[in-house]
Amino acid sequence: MTQHHSTRTTASQRQAARARPVVPRGPRRGLGVGELRLDGGFWGALQETNARATLQHCLDWMEQLGWIGNFDRVAEGTTGGGRPGWQFSDSEVYKLLEALAWEHGRTGDPAVDALLRKVVDRVAAAQDEDGYLNTCFGHAGQAGRYSDLSTGHELYCTGHLLQAAVARVRTTGTPGGTDEDLLVEVARRAADHVCREFGADGRGGDGRDGICGHPEIELGLAELGRALDEPRYTEQARLFVERRGHGTLAPIALLSPAYFQDDVPVRDADVWRGHAVRALYLAAGAVDVAVDTQDAGLRAAVERQWARSVERRTYLTGGMGSRHQDEGFGDDWELPPDRAYCETCAGVASVMVSWRLLLATGDVRYADLIERTLYNVVATSPRTDGRAFFYANPLQQREPGADVRPDAVNPRAEGGVRAPWFDVSCCPTNVARTLASWQAYAAFVEEPPEGLSDGAREAVSDGGVVVSLAQYAAGELRVALDRSSAGSAPDGELVLRVTTEYPHDGRIRVEVTAVPERPVTLRLRVPHWADGATLTGPDGSTTAVRPGWVTAGAAGTDAAGTDAGVSAALAVGDVVTLDLPVDPRLTWPDPRVDAVRGTAAVERGPLVLALESVDLPDGVQLDQVRLDAGVAPRAQGDGAVVRAVTVPLLEGGAGTPPFGSGGPGSAFAPTPDAGAPAFDLTLVPYHRWAERGPSTMRVFVPTARHEETR
Amino acid sequence: MTQHHSTRTTASQRQAARARPVVPRGPRRGLGVGELRLDGGFWGALQETNARATLQHCLDWMEQLGWIGNFDRVAEGTTGGGRPGWQFSDSEVYKLLEALAWEHGRTGDPAVDALLRKVVDRVAAAQDEDGYLNTCFGHAGQAGRYSDLSTGHELYCTGHLLQAAVARVRTTGTPGGTDEDLLVEVARRAADHVCREFGADGRGGDGRDGICGHPEIELGLAELGRALDEPRYTEQARLFVERRGHGTLAPIALLSPAYFQDDVPVRDADVWRGHAVRALYLAAGAVDVAVDTQDAGLRAAVERQWARSVERRTYLTGGMGSRHQDEGFGDDWELPPDRAYCETCAGVASVMVSWRLLLATGDVRYADLIERTLYNVVATSPRTDGRAFFYANPLQQREPGADVRPDAVNPRAEGGVRAPWFDVSCCPTNVARTLASWQAYAAFVEEPPEGLSDGAREAVSDGGVVVSLAQYAAGELRVALDRSSAGSAPDGELVLRVTTEYPHDGRIRVEVTAVPERPVTLRLRVPHWADGATLTGPDGSTTAVRPGWVTAGAAGTDAAGTDAGVSAALAVGDVVTLDLPVDPRLTWPDPRVDAVRGTAAVERGPLVLALESVDLPDGVQLDQVRLDAGVAPRAQGDGAVVRAVTVPLLEGGAGTPPFGSGGPGSAFAPTPDAGAPAFDLTLVPYHRWAERGPSTMRVFVPTARHEETR
Repeated sequence: MTQHHSTRTTASQRQAARARPVVPRGPRRGLGVGELRLDGGFWGALQETNARATLQHCLDWMEQLGWIGNFDRVAEGTTGGGRPGWQFSDSEVYKLLEALAWEHGRTGDPAVDALLRKVVDRVAAAQDEDGYLNTCFGHAGQAGRYSDLSTGHELYCTGHLLQAAVARVRTTGTPGGTDEDLLVEVARRAADHVCREFGADGRGGDGRDGICGHPEIELGLAELGRALDEPRYTEQARLFVERRGHGTLAPIALLSPAYFQDDVPVRDADVWRGHAVRALYLAAGAVDVAVDTQDAGLRAAVERQWARSVERRTYLTGGMGSRHQDEGFGDDWELPPDRAYCETCAGVASVMVSWRLLLATGDVRYADLIERTLYNVVATSPRTDGRAFFYANPLQQREPGADVRPDAVNPRAEGGVRAPWFDVSCCPTNVARTLASWQAYAAFVEEPPEGLSDGAREAVSDGGVVVSLAQYAAGELRVALDRSSAGSAPDGELVLRVTTEYPHDGRIRVEVTAVPERPVTLRLRVPHWADGATLTGPDGSTTAVRPGWVTAGAAGTDAAGTDAGVSAALAVGDVVTLDLPVDPRLTWPDPRVDAVRGTAAVERGPLVLALESVDLPDGVQLDQVRLDAGVAPRAQGDGAVVRAVTVPLLEGGAGTPPFGSGGPGSAFAPTPDAGAPAFDLTLVPYHRWAERGPSTMRVFVPTARHEETR
Repeated sequence: MTQHHSTRTTASQRQAARARPVVPRGPRRGLGVGELRLDGGFWGALQETNARATLQHCLDWMEQLGWIGNFDRVAEGTTGGGRPGWQFSDSEVYKLLEALAWEHGRTGDPAVDALLRKVVDRVAAAQDEDGYLNTCFGHAGQAGRYSDLSTGHELYCTGHLLQAAVARVRTTGTPGGTDEDLLVEVARRAADHVCREFGADGRGGDGRDGICGHPEIELGLAELGRALDEPRYTEQARLFVERRGHGTLAPIALLSPAYFQDDVPVRDADVWRGHAVRALYLAAGAVDVAVDTQDAGLRAAVERQWARSVERRTYLTGGMGSRHQDEGFGDDWELPPDRAYCETCAGVASVMVSWRLLLATGDVRYADLIERTLYNVVATSPRTDGRAFFYANPLQQREPGADVRPDAVNPRAEGGVRAPWFDVSCCPTNVARTLASWQAYAAFVEEPPEGLSDGAREAVSDGGVVVSLAQYAAGELRVALDRSSAGSAPDGELVLRVTTEYPHDGRIRVEVTAVPERPVTLRLRVPHWADGATLTGPDGSTTAVRPGWVTAGAAGTDAAGTDAGVSAALAVGDVVTLDLPVDPRLTWPDPRVDAVRGTAAVERGPLVLALESVDLPDGVQLDQVRLDAGVAPRAQGDGAVVRAVTVPLLEGGAGTPPFGSGGPGSAFAPTPDAGAPAFDLTLVPYHRWAERGPSTMRVFVPTARHEETR
């Protein structure tokens, strides 16, 4: 660790700086959580609240509900009788452990480490001799191990245990070394058990040729295999991926095999379908397997699924899941705003998939979707105080949500009010682990693959490296470019100071304060919505840049998202400034999205905005408002001000279905109120709606026909 | 039986003519199924197919699946081990019995009677000594009686048993007389058992202060109480209605108490919510209780719920249920066409509720909704051959339904293709019993309440009676007006010959071929959509008539749906002709129905029409079509021809969510293809869609802006 320029480096920051990045078997690696220190800002504030409030909040709820106590009961052999929590409650404990691991890795806070170790001790005590670890099955008074693969969630829980261990490996040091952690040891034993039970020889021997109803084990095994350099785990992940899609899971009443993606093999599917979180966890695991086994066909399948699903089954917010019935994707273009499920966990999972595809391909579109989803799904879920959450994230609220009691366990998908905890409470811990590891998504480092003659790599000459900023936040990026993954000697760090108020402001200033010996090229992402962006280089010249990756210090832009092909080695003192236009803009739905025909939304930079009833003038109902699309919205805070008019609505009492005859001016095709003046209306960022008491809300606002408002 | 004019009366028709009407404790009674003989036509054909194909189809499936065999196993004491069917499969057997009873009552066919008796013998053999009758609970190897009121459906099944018995009472003679039927006896014993178990003294004694998760017992008890003149049953029905809404049912995971209407007491609720069939069966039972106990507050509550639910939560088809998740109502104005659930059974139940309110109030709006629902939900479900059915009835199909194998049990709510049978197969038998008893909804008879001085009754002077035709079909109405309900001596029949090709044609000709001694006033319904209707009276004069009830022979119209107040006694040879305009017309959604903004539907008389992909010109996709609302649709068969244009659609591959910027002419606000000519497009009746192979479909078609098409 050399060449630190910052004088504010503390001991804990130095520890955090050791937090290791994800190193897939590809040319790109994500950032380690210790490699970027945020200076407040949008994500810094969320991360602070997560650290200060959410982690303990989750721990307290799970202690109170007995979900952690379930491990004690297994350890004590007292599992008979009732067991609190759903069959998958262990996974919430593991996701919290993962969040704690990232949090400790990010800050080096010994209190967080101690908290984690206490929970790990209780978890470890519940592990059976042979590595099996589950509090719902396999012990006295419980159903037998793996007796219900369709709904039992045992492997799902194990997958989350392995992901927690991966976070620990990435943040505490060399796997297998003397500092091996108890959590990592527990995970290793659990993974070994899974390989024995479900391995390839299971097809003819003692093992089980099965898969889990809820994908996740694929992901956990692949990540752990990579983190511990254990090909058996990768192979087991591959087996699970390949086994799915052949209709082997016992059906769940009233749900089709598509619900758990057991209808079509992963490599044959064209689009995501069924339960969104399951589909996305599976896709993430499939990318890991594809990358680590160099399976181009499998990778291409997931890319194809991503493209069609994003184009036709994804909300403006990045949210996924159009149906409550199965928490699932709908048909193409089926994107109702009011019944949008957009589960918070599906947002988290979508980021996980896109991040893997970003590292696998470098394609900027994946970073664009990550940004959209982080700001408008992940950041929407937690209440400002970090102690209540949205489970579903609809884009329209027709009736104000009911008040939530702070001490209540709530139904999971009620809209309109954030709740402290849910009966199925997957979202709070998913938010926690995502916020604690936000740094991972912020940038990636591209090494030229050694020994390969790849045209796209040629530009990175002489052992050079490309650092790409994918997400923007003020802070200090301190990337170890010591070739550890290639086994070479250290040659120093790149240190970048990012100054910005993004997304409030579109200016991102990057100053180079240290460089390694190797030449480094810096790329910045120009989001797809940023028409009119400019880049000011180290020489002070300002150039228009198009959406895509733009190489700092050169004018090159590559909208296709592949490498810019221009090497421009950074030097200490270099400053580049990217200016993104974040003026509010109108956004229109594709005409095939029937549910929002005749409406427009307003976005501001990466933020989707919303019209909330608490911002309406007295006497105006949300249903009456028509947006005057002929008047450009203007910025106000992080939201916008738009011009609006009202239309009259039919009074109740007709006693017939709400359909009838009538041309313009009738109750069924109302024109704006004659003589009623147009008025200004404030829209707020969608991610902060429902913070001012129960309200109704809509992202897509019906538009008045232009000629009617002039 | 005197003064028969028709010479074509057969023995079986004379038997059928004895089929007794429903006689509530109010001034109006519905038609007995034997009081109207259909001469083919829309409903006659459906009824024939039901008789010829559907009844046996249902019997065969239930025999094959073991749902009838379940009764044998209880009788034989061999209930251990697996039991085929859901816990509510008994109810399907009972609904088929009800259908058979009506069918026998309508035609007098001894083969139908024999079929019914065979099944009843098997059912009766399964009844326990104390009257309890259920094949899923209470016997060897089964859960205990009433051990799961929330989901066990025991009382629900019993309710359907009682309804079947009511059909038997109404079609076979005097209750309690020497010809008492085994089905009626079984039902009486089951009802007595329910009263003992769940009676009022249950609150402190041995009984159970419970309700059933699925309302239906209320309805069955109230109807049986009325049919057998047994106030204990009515009182038990009242108890069940009053007990609901206090949150006493054990919660079902992930569903709220509103799912089974246990959130708010019936008399306090303002709107229907939760599971639609449950809500509607409960409402029907509540009306029965309200009428028979003269509970004006309870009746007003259901009327209030009807009005708001129809105005804000009902589809153009009359379909109810906007959500798949809980098969339930949505919020106000939440009426997505693609995810419309509109369960066939909810349509049946809606007709049951409206029919009861029609008899309770005489308000024409209830008859209007019955017509809408019968033509566009109930008639939509069965395939032309009567051997396959829709369970859900969405108003838009985005992807063609998959082919259905004729021997397969299908998931219940897959759209697009009618299926022979479902895992939850409530709809086929519900269609069967409704079609078999269609006559009941066609007309009602209004007696002046004796001894009451009611202003509205004064017009019906001198012991006169009002007959109101609520639904139109060609045939012979033969109404016994023998004052049986008032205990007076017989004074003959009214015989009306109705000649019409409705709904293909809007002319309804009514000829009086026999009259009783009492003066009879005839009223005809002018549907709410029939602007421009005319009535030609016995004197040959033609008058414009407004929607509502119109008194034949006088020019009086009362749009409010209350009595016309004009007595015009019929005479033999009188002919009245109602002409309803059935030209196709455009129908627009209330602007609060977001899901179909910017679209219009086409209706023709009572028929909702649909655009089906099989009717599109080559090369045109359904998503491209825009309706030119400036050109009036014209009739073609029972459908219509409209003028249409196409818009270009964005090609795939954007890799971003389907939202973006762009004014008119962009992919996000496309204008009609320049130079592409307008073309004619055929719409078909919605009730007959999906009869020509898998297709996509929409009822609401996006409209081109008028100025863009000229």
